[in-house]
Amino acid sequence: MKIKIPATSANLGPGFDCLGLAIALYNEVCIKPSSYQSISVKGEGEENAKLKKNNIFVSIFYDIYQELAGKKDPFRFEFFNAIPFSRGLGSSSAVIVGAIASAYEMAGVKASRETILNKAILYETHPDNIAPAVFGGFTSSVVESGRVKTLKKVLGEKLKVVMVIPDRPMSTAHSRTLLPKSYPMKNVVYNLSRASLLTAAFFSENWEFLRVASKDCMHEHRRMKQMKELFEVREIALRSGALMSTLSGSGSSFFNLVKAEDAPKVAIALKNAFGMFRVEIFELDNNGFEIVKS
Amino acid sequence: MKIKIPATSANLGPGFDCLGLAIALYNEVCIKPSSYQSISVKGEGEENAKLKKNNIFVSIFYDIYQELAGKKDPFRFEFFNAIPFSRGLGSSSAVIVGAIASAYEMAGVKASRETILNKAILYETHPDNIAPAVFGGFTSSVVESGRVKTLKKVLGEKLKVVMVIPDRPMSTAHSRTLLPKSYPMKNVVYNLSRASLLTAAFFSENWEFLRVASKDCMHEHRRMKQMKELFEVREIALRSGALMSTLSGSGSSFFNLVKAEDAPKVAIALKNAFGMFRVEIFELDNNGFEIVKS
Repeated sequence: MKIKIPATSANLGPGFDCLGLAIALYNEVCIKPSSYQSISVKGEGEENAKLKKNNIFVSIFYDIYQELAGKKDPFRFEFFNAIPFSRGLGSSSAVIVGAIASAYEMAGVKASRETILNKAILYETHPDNIAPAVFGGFTSSVVESGRVKTLKKVLGEKLKVVMVIPDRPMSTAHSRTLLPKSYPMKNVVYNLSRASLLTAAFFSENWEFLRVASKDCMHEHRRMKQMKELFEVREIALRSGALMSTLSGSGSSFFNLVKAEDAPKVAIALKNAFGMFRVEIFELDNNGFEIVKS
Repeated sequence: MKIKIPATSANLGPGFDCLGLAIALYNEVCIKPSSYQSISVKGEGEENAKLKKNNIFVSIFYDIYQELAGKKDPFRFEFFNAIPFSRGLGSSSAVIVGAIASAYEMAGVKASRETILNKAILYETHPDNIAPAVFGGFTSSVVESGRVKTLKKVLGEKLKVVMVIPDRPMSTAHSRTLLPKSYPMKNVVYNLSRASLLTAAFFSENWEFLRVASKDCMHEHRRMKQMKELFEVREIALRSGALMSTLSGSGSSFFNLVKAEDAPKVAIALKNAFGMFRVEIFELDNNGFEIVKS
């Protein structure tokens, strides 16, 4: 079997730990029965020997597979990774979701996407990346008593993403230590009202509301100070016509949502200003992970 | 002319200071040119002499009217008030919105609902009641540089409100002093994720998500401790099939959203338990204030 799992962009400004969307940039994994277990990695992480020795996908896969099948069969795992690591593009969530969904598939156990999501939350505390990796589209999620509740909005073809992917990572763990432990009421209302309006704008397709609704005062500024070019990325993206421009997850990538016809203009402006960063245009993903039988 | 302005219920659980909806319970005001200024009050506040001497509606009306017409003409104001005072049903916002909209009308100056809303925010810091009083429906609002941005969802006829209106008020000002000045990250994410999911549930009409999405950890518990029966109101409402059950604004009323067919059942259960409180079934309002020329 082959599984493909989309990249995701979380937070989307004010939607700290709960809002996200899926991007048509995929990791693919082929899994085949084999007489002994083996791993090959192509693409992102290809040069990293640790990915072969201590592979998180394989480890989660066998957690679930053994639980379902009651035994540990040997498989060959072939990874084709297109999602960069540690860039705020949901590579960890793609690994978790992909490993769980493919374990169910290989064990021959049918599972709903909700089941996959609720297994995934055991490996990743926040639902903001795993929910769009599971469902695709724009997702709004809540964790209640350890279970995830998600509503999804399919995003049409009128939108594209211009992603700015810096040449260096920002650690999620370190990035989180930069944040305050508590927030004054005023800032809470700032983000809470904007996260709600952002959700309303996505669900009602009122794209002109995204710019105001995507502002954040909880985390972006502190995180972006680690890589000051990002302030200029936002300025150029918005000036060139981006609908919204937010730190992707905890960075370092910057997510710019644009009307499809504006994508080349925004991408060129960013490419001209940041020659050392990758600037790429992506479609949105509306399906979440997909299993292709072979 | 005659203007009618709906009651509103704000916060809706987690949507502190930003979410609200309009209820088909109206204050009406008739305004007629007259040789001298006079006021009559029927309904709520009828017995309160202060409402005649120091009337906020009239005071705001003339603020705006003089600004637009350049003079202070005498009018007769006849109030028919159905929205109870100090019960978290948006009576102040109805006064503000009604006064502004009718001043524009009497001065013969056309104004969009956005204009009315942006005048109203000068008299009321938070948009959670004024936005639904202006637009009707469910509203998600943000204040950005002193201007309000609102997205509205029309609510169909499948929903009704069972409102529990206690026999005594809770002061908004006092109620706000009970709240902490800052909130730990965990609580912020709790409310922020639920306010977003609540908005998604209203916009996508996934009513079964409302129960989880309407939970709050920022303000309700502290406020409800002032009137402990309210905890039981919620318990009975949810047990009887309410979709969500939240403190209306800062109280003292309790807002219960129900499927239309469940309204009698929920209302009877609440009425039986709380004989001393008013329990009433209302439709939702989808129009906001309305001007009827006469």
